[in-house]
Amino acid sequence: LPDTVAIVGLGLIGGSLARDLRAREVRVLGYDREPATLAAAAAVGIEALRGLTDPALGEAGLLVLAVPVTVAAELLPLVARQLGDGCVVTDVGSTKRSIAEAARRAGIGARFAGSHPLAGDHRSGWDASREGLFSGARVFLCPSPDTGEAALAAVRSLWRGVDARLEELGAEEHDRQLAWTSHLPQLAASALAGALASAGWRPDQLGPGGRDATRLAASSPEVWSAISRDNAEPIAAALSALTERLAAFQAALAADDPQAIRRFFELAHRWSRDVPPPP
Amino acid sequence: LPDTVAIVGLGLIGGSLARDLRAREVRVLGYDREPATLAAAAAVGIEALRGLTDPALGEAGLLVLAVPVTVAAELLPLVARQLGDGCVVTDVGSTKRSIAEAARRAGIGARFAGSHPLAGDHRSGWDASREGLFSGARVFLCPSPDTGEAALAAVRSLWRGVDARLEELGAEEHDRQLAWTSHLPQLAASALAGALASAGWRPDQLGPGGRDATRLAASSPEVWSAISRDNAEPIAAALSALTERLAAFQAALAADDPQAIRRFFELAHRWSRDVPPPP
Repeated sequence: LPDTVAIVGLGLIGGSLARDLRAREVRVLGYDREPATLAAAAAVGIEALRGLTDPALGEAGLLVLAVPVTVAAELLPLVARQLGDGCVVTDVGSTKRSIAEAARRAGIGARFAGSHPLAGDHRSGWDASREGLFSGARVFLCPSPDTGEAALAAVRSLWRGVDARLEELGAEEHDRQLAWTSHLPQLAASALAGALASAGWRPDQLGPGGRDATRLAASSPEVWSAISRDNAEPIAAALSALTERLAAFQAALAADDPQAIRRFFELAHRWSRDVPPPP
Repeated sequence: LPDTVAIVGLGLIGGSLARDLRAREVRVLGYDREPATLAAAAAVGIEALRGLTDPALGEAGLLVLAVPVTVAAELLPLVARQLGDGCVVTDVGSTKRSIAEAARRAGIGARFAGSHPLAGDHRSGWDASREGLFSGARVFLCPSPDTGEAALAAVRSLWRGVDARLEELGAEEHDRQLAWTSHLPQLAASALAGALASAGWRPDQLGPGGRDATRLAASSPEVWSAISRDNAEPIAAALSALTERLAAFQAALAADDPQAIRRFFELAHRWSRDVPPPP
């Protein structure tokens, strides 16, 4: 691990990473737009940066952008100018193509290797952050063609240092995969919650299964608006598959077709027989 | 509680109820189409009925039909002929209008009061059944206009006897409410799982949130085919609301409309802020 790590954004992911690094005696420079978060972070030994142009940024060997993905792409050119020559940059966003492209345009493509920890849940903010969040969690490490070996090695050691399970996947393939395995479940949960809300039903009227199905709807609107816009094309393809399945079921129900209705549930049942139980 | 309760169907719900009643020293007569289940049930003191025409049925003061809802409606006329004069009948199905109508047609409308315990999850079968499943669980008690006071009182005492929280709701209103609060979440989860399955993604590629959103997809296809067909009309209305929300989001994404995208997630987020955390 580097001696000094700078983290921009001390929410669930950035805050948890900062706590883990402090617990391993790494010096952590932190920035967050909320003064209250900076004050709370100071109490666990995180040194507050006065802004993104604070010269102290030059002391970091590694910079982690832990803000919503579109914000990270906007900050990169500004932050890039403050970094020391050897400083490696990563992020924790849920999409990886656009941020790699932003790094290339900012002239730090070789020193950038994107990350995506699958450790978040529907909670967000510093108050939700905690030590050990990444222990055993899957983290995608997503090099682009520009990424240099030294940058890749530094980001690898960051995540190994907090006990994550690394999985390397190219930025483009990552975004396509996540459109299905993460963004589509989020959209299904948000659409379900929105439909229930519009019809006047309350969360406490759901049973345990309905609570599972809608849990993701509590996720941050800011984060998910950014992800959706940033990964719109792969998401649109995945969404079409979902709406086609719902339309097929609606047709089967309207026709009272027992075989087609049964097949709808059978496919889902067979697929999910190895979904792990809740932790 | 009556001295003798007969339970037809020893799956998750019927089996758990049988275990709870045995633990309270009630005599339980059980029937299941699976001989292995009957044998396992005998080991915890449940007396096997030899079939639905077994004269021992006449000794029951209360009969519980714990089979998929369309099966229950088919069995009722047959079973009704074997019952003693004072025997009260209930069921545990997820829809309540059609079974009440079947009871009326079988000539036992006054002795029938439908129940719907919200205690199941995606598991099913005798092996998933357990003592205490209904403790603190919500159970809808759904009288029809035909239901007599004595029947209602007997079914009430059954569920209170296993520590459930009772909620009385007319059969028709129940079915409309559940189309939204239970059947729609099930369909969203099954459609999501089916879309992922068809595109070749595996459950182990999902993060914790995706696993929550798809957990219900593991539910019994037999049970859910029956529920869907039985409650088709209210379900169709709820499904339309879901597909309209998804279509609105697709349009917002295609137009790259930041406000509309944000509103989609905001509505869901505000609604779900009081979804209880996983147990």
